[in-house]
Amino acid sequence: MSDHIYKKIELVGSSPHGIEEAVKNAVEHAAKTVRHMRWFEVAETRGHIVDGRIDHWQVTVKIGFTLEG
Amino acid sequence: MSDHIYKKIELVGSSPHGIEEAVKNAVEHAAKTVRHMRWFEVAETRGHIVDGRIDHWQVTVKIGFTLEG
Amino acid sequence: MSDHIYKKIELVGSSPHGIEEAVKNAVEHAAKTVRHMRWFEVAETRGHIVDGRIDHWQVTVKIGFTLEG
Amino acid sequence: MSDHIYKKIELVGSSPHGIEEAVKNAVEHAAKTVRHMRWFEVAETRGHIVDGRIDHWQVTVKIGFTLEG
Amino acid sequence: MSDHIYKKIELVGSSPHGIEEAVKNAVEHAAKTVRHMRWFEVAETRGHIVDGRIDHWQVTVKIGFTLEG
Amino acid sequence: MSDHIYKKIELVGSSPHGIEEAVKNAVEHAAKTVRHMRWFEVAETRGHIVDGRIDHWQVTVKIGFTLEG
Amino acid sequence: MSDHIYKKIELVGSSPHGIEEAVKNAVEHAAKTVRHMRWFEVAETRGHIVDGRIDHWQVTVKIGFTLEG
Amino acid sequence: MSDHIYKKIELVGSSPHGIEEAVKNAVEHAAKTVRHMRWFEVAETRGHIVDGRIDHWQVTVKIGFTLEG
Amino acid sequence: MSDHIYKKIELVGSSPHGIEEAVKNAVEHAAKTVRHMRWFEVAETRGHIVDGRIDHWQVTVKIGFTLEG
Amino acid sequence: MSDHIYKKIELVGSSPHGIEEAVKNAVEHAAKTVRHMRWFEVAETRGHIVDGRIDHWQVTVKIGFTLEG
Amino acid sequence: MSDHIYKKIELVGSSPHGIEEAVKNAVEHAAKTVRHMRWFEVAETRGHIVDGRIDHWQVTVKIGFTLEG
Amino acid sequence: MSDHIYKKIELVGSSPHGIEEAVKNAVEHAAKTVRHMRWFEVAETRGHIVDGRIDHWQVTVKIGFTLEG
Repeated sequence: MSDHIYKKIELVGSSPHGIEEAVKNAVEHAAKTVRHMRWFEVAETRGHIVDGRIDHWQVTVKIGFTLEG
Repeated sequence: MSDHIYKKIELVGSSPHGIEEAVKNAVEHAAKTVRHMRWFEVAETRGHIVDGRIDHWQVTVKIGFTLEG
Repeated sequence: MSDHIYKKIELVGSSPHGIEEAVKNAVEHAAKTVRHMRWFEVAETRGHIVDGRIDHWQVTVKIGFTLEG
Repeated sequence: MSDHIYKKIELVGSSPHGIEEAVKNAVEHAAKTVRHMRWFEVAETRGHIVDGRIDHWQVTVKIGFTLEG
Repeated sequence: MSDHIYKKIELVGSSPHGIEEAVKNAVEHAAKTVRHMRWFEVAETRGHIVDGRIDHWQVTVKIGFTLEG
Repeated sequence: MSDHIYKKIELVGSSPHGIEEAVKNAVEHAAKTVRHMRWFEVAETRGHIVDGRIDHWQVTVKIGFTLEG
Repeated sequence: MSDHIYKKIELVGSSPHGIEEAVKNAVEHAAKTVRHMRWFEVAETRGHIVDGRIDHWQVTVKIGFTLEG
Repeated sequence: MSDHIYKKIELVGSSPHGIEEAVKNAVEHAAKTVRHMRWFEVAETRGHIVDGRIDHWQVTVKIGFTLEG
Repeated sequence: MSDHIYKKIELVGSSPHGIEEAVKNAVEHAAKTVRHMRWFEVAETRGHIVDGRIDHWQVTVKIGFTLEG
Repeated sequence: MSDHIYKKIELVGSSPHGIEEAVKNAVEHAAKTVRHMRWFEVAETRGHIVDGRIDHWQVTVKIGFTLEG
Repeated sequence: MSDHIYKKIELVGSSPHGIEEAVKNAVEHAAKTVRHMRWFEVAETRGHIVDGRIDHWQVTVKIGFTLEG
Repeated sequence: MSDHIYKKIELVGSSPHGIEEAVKNAVEHAAKTVRHMRWFEVAETRGHIVDGRIDHWQVTVKIGFTLEG
């Protein structure tokens, strides 16, 4: 691990239910095209309000993955 | 939308169960007096501990709403 | 309360399920050795990804407790 | 001036043309209901993109005004 | 306390003498119109200089108060 | 919109004339290869000075766009 | 001094009178059990309000002390 | 360029018209006494309001210049 | 005032008694060589501890003054 | 240079020896696929500890490169 | 790993030679009394100057270690 | 030391080899004209890339020195 190089990308996941599901949606969407993901960092949590209620959550995450040689 | 003016207010919602419910409580309380709420931003998450257990969560949110002409 | 002194320590709790449980694990672990805990502050939320899915959450919390005379 | 009390409110002004006009729109909208405004501070600058072009700017400003005795 | 909702407002208090009096002036001015104030947070400390001496201090405080049901 | 995933990229746009044009240049350059751009956030504003005058502005923007399924 | 190791701890001192006394209370409480304290850094200043008046100040300080060999 | 030393100074430029002119005014004023200016960084944007309108903008910039051997 | 240029310098004032006196010492020392000082901003508050007691406070202030034409 | 557009990417380089080598590793890995790199910014420095010793350093860098027309 | 609890402590290491050695000194000093250290984070880098030369570096690090059941 | 006043200036040192040498170059350049320098604080670390390799490091440091009576 001492010579790995990682790249970090920034995604925003959404969910009507909460923070964890919004992050999960972002990670699982990324998994379709990105391999070797290792960690995520929550950078910002916000959401939309419609008719006086929370409509959906939007969570910005940075995702780190190993770059292959 | 290109000429809207929004105001942001800062509330702290509480919940014995977690972050999402604390935010929901803040938003729904605001809905009693504020119309046209559009989004929220989570600014700070903290809580109280009683007898070695989490007693309740306190989440600071900024809420944005449209100002009417 | 006006002459209390508090100490803050920084812990990282983990959970496969989400933020609230990670904080709960940190607080309850601390309760084994620290008395008079009063509040916590969430400082950082991140987690590990394994095989394209969230494996566990890691939440950094500061915990404040009363120092006895 | 040495005993004045000020209140700060946070608004978001919009404009299709740029930052200055977005701030101007926020200040002039506030002027309809707030008296004795003294200064503003730009807190955040962002905007919406439609069809690959900037559609409008959104600038968050804090506005300070004197509270009357 | 586990279901309280709080609102935070931002004031700037002034004083020729120092930080504590500037905060005190802001809190006591707010007390004329705001009930159930619970805490304050100092956000910024600055001041004016006249003829090479401090003329007055200006301290920005956020004040939290309970919103009634 | 409640299940959208967005990606954010970070660009630096330049302009001899000012901030708005530097952002516009970044957005319009991105539009050549990125579809479904939704918003931008100004992160940093700086510029170069030549012979005692502003030669050009450099504005760092984060641009968010929808990831397709 | 070029090979010293220091540890920093984080305390919150309280006082009904002001910031300096709150810091002094934290430092003097720490002096009961910590030796070789060298410096402090004020991290956060806040306080409680009771009946429309400041009841007490709470100041978070980091305190650095030399670790012995 | 690999052995240059730069100094950064902090100025506040003013303008009734907007941000770019306020920065331009600061840079051109500095040019009267400072040589070899290379870049500027916008640190803060604010302004004064008179009679419900923006009277002038105040932009804090850091300016970097080469120190001569 | 709409075309003034200001410069900001950063000083650290010391005092055995507290924050206000440390700032006062910095401002009054600056007044020996700097004219047209207008405002100060407190950037950092720290201090030294000797024998388990606060020996002196050190307060970092930025001081703004008008540059003459 | 006044009309260049740059993109910034975020990498994490590792090294058992120190910060400079970790950054060098990140930059040289990026050079395999990215052309026209111009600058880097160190965003975060951390590392892993194994058996009471530093095993390797991990340095997060943002790398800026020119986007071609 | 998904149910580990970590504690973070904050140390300042010194060295006449540079950042890496200052961190190494802090980690190796901690290793005398702390077991199961896992990572460090560099929080602040500064140093003392004597007779116009760097006398020693002081680097603040947070060190994370596993708490045992 | 309890009545000293310090001034802080901000320099950027460069070096093809690394951070420590860049800071050393800034400090030693300052020593030509500034007396009584006491400490430095690293504020920002960045550098230039040429042909896919680090060409030189640029480190922003604040340097504090005692102002004489």
